Amino acid sequence: MRVGVLTGGGDCPGLNAVMRGVVRKAENTYGDEIIGFRDGWKGVINNETVELSIASMRGTLTRGGTVLGTSRVHPWMQEDGVEKIAATVADQNLDAMIVIGGEGTLSCARRLHDEGVINVIGIPKTIDNDISATDMTFGFMTAVEVAADAVDRLHSTAESHDRVMVLEVMGRHVGHIAMWAGLAGGATVTLVPEEPFDIAEVAESIKRRHEKGRFASIVVVAEGALPKPGTLDVVEPEVDIYGHQRLGGIGATVAAEIEKLTGFETRVTVLGYVQRGGTPSAFDRVLCTWYGVAAIDAVHQGDFGRMVSFQNAGMTTVSLDDAVGGLKTIDPQLWDVAKTFFG
Amino acid sequence: MRVGVLTGGGDCPGLNAVMRGVVRKAENTYGDEIIGFRDGWKGVINNETVELSIASMRGTLTRGGTVLGTSRVHPWMQEDGVEKIAATVADQNLDAMIVIGGEGTLSCARRLHDEGVINVIGIPKTIDNDISATDMTFGFMTAVEVAADAVDRLHSTAESHDRVMVLEVMGRHVGHIAMWAGLAGGATVTLVPEEPFDIAEVAESIKRRHEKGRFASIVVVAEGALPKPGTLDVVEPEVDIYGHQRLGGIGATVAAEIEKLTGFETRVTVLGYVQRGGTPSAFDRVLCTWYGVAAIDAVHQGDFGRMVSFQNAGMTTVSLDDAVGGLKTIDPQLWDVAKTFFG
Amino acid sequence: MRVGVLTGGGDCPGLNAVMRGVVRKAENTYGDEIIGFRDGWKGVINNETVELSIASMRGTLTRGGTVLGTSRVHPWMQEDGVEKIAATVADQNLDAMIVIGGEGTLSCARRLHDEGVINVIGIPKTIDNDISATDMTFGFMTAVEVAADAVDRLHSTAESHDRVMVLEVMGRHVGHIAMWAGLAGGATVTLVPEEPFDIAEVAESIKRRHEKGRFASIVVVAEGALPKPGTLDVVEPEVDIYGHQRLGGIGATVAAEIEKLTGFETRVTVLGYVQRGGTPSAFDRVLCTWYGVAAIDAVHQGDFGRMVSFQNAGMTTVSLDDAVGGLKTIDPQLWDVAKTFFG
Amino acid sequence: MRVGVLTGGGDCPGLNAVMRGVVRKAENTYGDEIIGFRDGWKGVINNETVELSIASMRGTLTRGGTVLGTSRVHPWMQEDGVEKIAATVADQNLDAMIVIGGEGTLSCARRLHDEGVINVIGIPKTIDNDISATDMTFGFMTAVEVAADAVDRLHSTAESHDRVMVLEVMGRHVGHIAMWAGLAGGATVTLVPEEPFDIAEVAESIKRRHEKGRFASIVVVAEGALPKPGTLDVVEPEVDIYGHQRLGGIGATVAAEIEKLTGFETRVTVLGYVQRGGTPSAFDRVLCTWYGVAAIDAVHQGDFGRMVSFQNAGMTTVSLDDAVGGLKTIDPQLWDVAKTFFG
Repeated sequence: MRVGVLTGGGDCPGLNAVMRGVVRKAENTYGDEIIGFRDGWKGVINNETVELSIASMRGTLTRGGTVLGTSRVHPWMQEDGVEKIAATVADQNLDAMIVIGGEGTLSCARRLHDEGVINVIGIPKTIDNDISATDMTFGFMTAVEVAADAVDRLHSTAESHDRVMVLEVMGRHVGHIAMWAGLAGGATVTLVPEEPFDIAEVAESIKRRHEKGRFASIVVVAEGALPKPGTLDVVEPEVDIYGHQRLGGIGATVAAEIEKLTGFETRVTVLGYVQRGGTPSAFDRVLCTWYGVAAIDAVHQGDFGRMVSFQNAGMTTVSLDDAVGGLKTIDPQLWDVAKTFFG
Repeated sequence: MRVGVLTGGGDCPGLNAVMRGVVRKAENTYGDEIIGFRDGWKGVINNETVELSIASMRGTLTRGGTVLGTSRVHPWMQEDGVEKIAATVADQNLDAMIVIGGEGTLSCARRLHDEGVINVIGIPKTIDNDISATDMTFGFMTAVEVAADAVDRLHSTAESHDRVMVLEVMGRHVGHIAMWAGLAGGATVTLVPEEPFDIAEVAESIKRRHEKGRFASIVVVAEGALPKPGTLDVVEPEVDIYGHQRLGGIGATVAAEIEKLTGFETRVTVLGYVQRGGTPSAFDRVLCTWYGVAAIDAVHQGDFGRMVSFQNAGMTTVSLDDAVGGLKTIDPQLWDVAKTFFG
Repeated sequence: MRVGVLTGGGDCPGLNAVMRGVVRKAENTYGDEIIGFRDGWKGVINNETVELSIASMRGTLTRGGTVLGTSRVHPWMQEDGVEKIAATVADQNLDAMIVIGGEGTLSCARRLHDEGVINVIGIPKTIDNDISATDMTFGFMTAVEVAADAVDRLHSTAESHDRVMVLEVMGRHVGHIAMWAGLAGGATVTLVPEEPFDIAEVAESIKRRHEKGRFASIVVVAEGALPKPGTLDVVEPEVDIYGHQRLGGIGATVAAEIEKLTGFETRVTVLGYVQRGGTPSAFDRVLCTWYGVAAIDAVHQGDFGRMVSFQNAGMTTVSLDDAVGGLKTIDPQLWDVAKTFFG
Repeated sequence: MRVGVLTGGGDCPGLNAVMRGVVRKAENTYGDEIIGFRDGWKGVINNETVELSIASMRGTLTRGGTVLGTSRVHPWMQEDGVEKIAATVADQNLDAMIVIGGEGTLSCARRLHDEGVINVIGIPKTIDNDISATDMTFGFMTAVEVAADAVDRLHSTAESHDRVMVLEVMGRHVGHIAMWAGLAGGATVTLVPEEPFDIAEVAESIKRRHEKGRFASIVVVAEGALPKPGTLDVVEPEVDIYGHQRLGGIGATVAAEIEKLTGFETRVTVLGYVQRGGTPSAFDRVLCTWYGVAAIDAVHQGDFGRMVSFQNAGMTTVSLDDAVGGLKTIDPQLWDVAKTFFG
């Protein structure tokens, strides 16, 4: 078989490890040829390929990012995008396409599949772990390790200066990274999108804690955390008045308010892109490899129009319709555990 | 309530984090007093306690080992052991005991519970992840990260010298650590107790690989891996003829045989105790905290004679009878993935 | 002897390790008593002490921050500050004081020494490594490792998206951290305070690089880097119009300009406080211990009014006058090496 | 110019970073062509080359090992070795050769230079940091970080079990790694080749420490540490009676004796090859790059027959005669500091 592979959307640790899994099983077990496409759907539209073989993937298991490149271009953004994809499929004589991406990329995959343009197998990619159709996405746990390490480092400086340190982590719609990093790092409070916060309560819990002794506080904030309606004006991030990338929308707001309400010196750190990059953890390398192997297996089982999903500690598939539907919010049982540690 | 806590058997990363979880929820939510016992059952027999409070546990989330100490002493090893335990229970006015340990420690817990000596809740502790009644034990994934890091380091030296490097990791009865570390590190072959190996086949796969180019090989061996019956004499580890601790029983044997059969320079490294110690990973810190909180919750639900178990990404309890029964061997689906990468 | 110890100014990795060195040598070799003062000069003014003994320092070798706390309070900020210090010296019966701090803290130490208030030995503390009287300050190399790790992580995400990533690191007056992290991480350009930059040249070098292929760029910027006079308006950091801590003064400016001039998507990350905190590297732990031991040795040699200094791979002392005088800028030979790698 | 490069002897972290430094400066500043030779002198004898260019070195800054491979083959081991080297020099039209290696490899370089076969510049390579003609060799500090991390991990398991843990680290002739790792990790005793030990004294100091409380001990032993003459029989490592690689010669002996003399449970870990491999630390990456750039600069200064040396925090050159002469033993001042912490 000839099978295409692409990576779309934002990058996350382990993309290369997934592709290495695809290629290894494909070449060794099935004798397939794998064709990589450059920069997501853009490469399929333009028929731009990248070699993807056991040889070319050597040394990439531990390498962050994606050797294919990625983009947010999609078929319906461009004139004749779908026709061009069909032409590429024909030109490359593709039997199927493995599409590694998030909601946007997989929605395109589903539509192309439904329209009969190409047989697709999806692999979920979101560093936020927010796809309900799978128990765990790859890259997420590496981001948690990086964020928890930052919390560890902030602890000592907070303690030395009797300060409050606010750490803003990724999580636009859900608080998985924030909750895990906050728990793992021993944060005083963690703020997540799932549960709007009352800044006065946050300040109170920090004050209570500081009254008990000299113990500094760490507040972990997901970038998408929101105050209860009407309680606090949050400045939209993006670009500031000088035209510069604005860092720490919610994080900076929370820090400024805490300082105002408690009188404690408060500082914000925005972890940003370091959560996305670098070597995947051992856990993620195994998970990635497993996803990749399961995807090429699904191709050979003719399981098209479906996404590989990690459920009950094993790989299965779900329909792409289900896959891109639901947002997975934080686990209520674990969130209860997290709240036990709030100040 | 007054609740005792002990840690028994070999140590593993995250024991302190578990106890911090117990103490935090106990003090803050239930107003309990927690009494730590020194060195496993020995401390209960001798009524030797250690302070275990939110204050005393400060800073231990990231600390390896156990602040209580541990031992392999058990109640039936010592005269009047059970009577002394009953006396301690009465003296300390204990309502329940949270027992953190492996098969041996928990078997004692079950028997003491069955004999009505004390209400117990168990928490599974085995770095090998080999208890079938729980999906994942704490400390295991940290050991995997340490072992995979060692594989990464051995890769470059293997490549520079065109060598075979054998890495012996923990896993007396099961190959979870070996399989995960081998997959995460890109090992050429991984040997596990679950599947006796044929050294001639191992040598052949390494030779095939080397014939294709200059690619060095890493062989990960669980300490309990065994050759197929009659194919290879393995020297028992323990102590050598000089009375010294003998390192690398199976690892050294495998390395010597590979060198003999392939002619390639082969070296063995025995990772040993570094897998047991040190800061738990962020993943393990969350898992530990969750185990600890769930255990004190179980005490308050009167769920005695049971062990906290992590199943389907949530905490539940199982009877201690089931808990200490089955050995959990490696997952066949993941083992199949692992074999895809064998040379 | 009875010897006081204080830590002043901003924290950095290894302060505890320094004090552990002082205490160990003091108790074991000299039979001294060491008295810790809380929060820098503030604790001496208020006669607030913290136990500082071999026992109390157990476990602190690897711990970031300072168990004493720190502040920027100084004797001349407060009414009768110097008199109160003299009173504390008398009350505590102090023979000498070991002062661990940067320029501000050590200037006070010198003045108190010159005025005969107390015998002092200084230990230089600046994470920026910018004191000319010593070859290397502790904590600096740990900050370099943290910053270089961030560069590593940014590389993969930059490559995947064909982006420019700007990383702002510490270094208000000097570029040591930026230069080392940039070299260690393989940055395309590094901007330091010592050499004002021309943003047009920076943009050109990035464009040249991108024209050669698909290679993303990393730009490391010291927080104190400055454009050539008249070439670029830089927004002062501190607080933004919303009253929030403003992140990425120069970093955000540089990123916005690069995007404007090159047309390449450019993102900024401000590493901030994670550079200051956490476990010191092995190198720093040795350096810290050496500083601490040398300081108490200097006390016993009556070497007062002087600062311990690391020179030619050994410890010596210099007068406090020299110590706080000169700013150590980046090494011209190493800067030349760094420039070899500019795009 | 056309300049050859080879790496000889055992590998160590940062070899690729050194060559990347050579290549970058050579191509960008001087317009040279660099020719890599495979597997040390063997590749020069056989005229086997490997591409060494900015393009081929991309991504190798963080990669352990050497892309050239290495061996211990030398010109006088093989018939007509020197003649073949001369032929390769002529065939490749080489103006000079940069030789990266330890005492053996550099001795050959010197002799070939003295005999007029080729113009050589040496770069010192020894993970043990034992060359007296340079202040610091690359790779050494990475090995120290790895060894100190192992000590950290052993601490917690030692404490939990009240055990003595012996860690054998590299250092055949000198104790630099042992002394640094012991100091950085807080070892109770460190044994180095420079100072023969009395096992009875070691046991006494451990007993004294344990009598003071529940404090476990870590003993760091350099592989070349030796007992005082006549005090202890040490088994030679190499191969055991079963023909297997024997691990832990001196480490296993020391552990067995400590257990015998103190009665405390004692375990040995042999760190082995993990010290040699993997990503160099940020410190080492800078040092490596600097060595590489200085070497090609020396070629263009015609500084032949000399070795690049790091002295007084800068690069210079020394004659190859001096370079391979002296063994650099541990610093007496720092060894004194280390002994302050002995139990």
